[in-house]
Amino acid sequence: MDITFLLFEGITALDAVGPYEVLQRLPEANVRFVAKEVGPIRTDNGFLALVADHALDDVTTADVLVVPGGFATRALEDDKDTLDWIKTVDASTTWTTSVCTGSMLLAAAGLLDGKEATSHWASLHRLAEYGAIPTGRRVVEQGKIVTAAGVSAGIDMGLTLTARIAGDDYAQAIQLGIEYDPQPPFDAGSVHKAPKETVELLAAMYAGRV
Amino acid sequence: MDITFLLFEGITALDAVGPYEVLQRLPEANVRFVAKEVGPIRTDNGFLALVADHALDDVTTADVLVVPGGFATRALEDDKDTLDWIKTVDASTTWTTSVCTGSMLLAAAGLLDGKEATSHWASLHRLAEYGAIPTGRRVVEQGKIVTAAGVSAGIDMGLTLTARIAGDDYAQAIQLGIEYDPQPPFDAGSVHKAPKETVELLAAMYAGRV
Repeated sequence: MDITFLLFEGITALDAVGPYEVLQRLPEANVRFVAKEVGPIRTDNGFLALVADHALDDVTTADVLVVPGGFATRALEDDKDTLDWIKTVDASTTWTTSVCTGSMLLAAAGLLDGKEATSHWASLHRLAEYGAIPTGRRVVEQGKIVTAAGVSAGIDMGLTLTARIAGDDYAQAIQLGIEYDPQPPFDAGSVHKAPKETVELLAAMYAGRV
Repeated sequence: MDITFLLFEGITALDAVGPYEVLQRLPEANVRFVAKEVGPIRTDNGFLALVADHALDDVTTADVLVVPGGFATRALEDDKDTLDWIKTVDASTTWTTSVCTGSMLLAAAGLLDGKEATSHWASLHRLAEYGAIPTGRRVVEQGKIVTAAGVSAGIDMGLTLTARIAGDDYAQAIQLGIEYDPQPPFDAGSVHKAPKETVELLAAMYAGRV
């Protein structure tokens, strides 16, 4: 089973590595990290690089496609090479998936027209600009397309997808393997649960004021 | 604030990237990925490489040290260069932390003697071989040493540590930024919750029989 992750400069690392940690454990998984150019791809703050072993031109099919997100997807929404590649690979997939603002690229590629989809909560409304139906669930399945909410939601998406591909028992074994029994010290991970002050502080962090 | 991650061949990617995604967002964070040799470091199944920008000899101090885990830590428990480096850096830290079997390296380096600590549930008992007190909590704080349980527990550890360093408000804003509102599709992430069949299936996966 060929599982292909799109990488790009400025990607958010956990968007890719969360589902990767789950999906790489599927039976007979063959995972490929693909970018415009082979080599190290710097993640958003520049501290960490993930390595792309394949160039876009070298990978045109996949059983599972994962498109991660990050602030950098905004520029890629107009990048014909990236969108064409996503459309080309999608034509061959059994599952086409995204994490966080990766869904904006699926949408910009025309794959979410008329479909429910999710994204990072701060970008969710923008899906409608491309004809998708913004949906606040953490993991949204629409036929073969599965979109996940922001950053850490890719782990939940990976487990959901694993259950579809290899069965609930297998997915539970992977969950136990990565000891995914989450116990966040706060309950501020959703914009519907976080205090107003938390939303304001995050906006200030995004704006570089903190 | 210098935040230093140890990388090594065979590391489990999420062990490092989970806490990285949180801690890189601390105010004035300067994150360094360090390994025996500069360059790409292949993670456990070999599909993904994370890049080490610094060699062990070039980094001897840190404010926060993060030691991730993976099956590869077993061999490193006898690796004098790695253990000496951990001891050297620990002498300068405000916080010394681990994820998953990274705690076995802290223990082998003599840093957990008489202290409570955690690890991946399947390795937890082995901490006692080095004089630590195995403790099944997800995040265990003992003075400046903070250990996390398996793989995904590093995200919870990162948020706990962020709260200590930058306050609860800041940690909550980061939690919202990474939309960490976990909704795993199953409740099998702890050996105390998973069905017996799940534990047996995972054992078979570890043994390469599945």
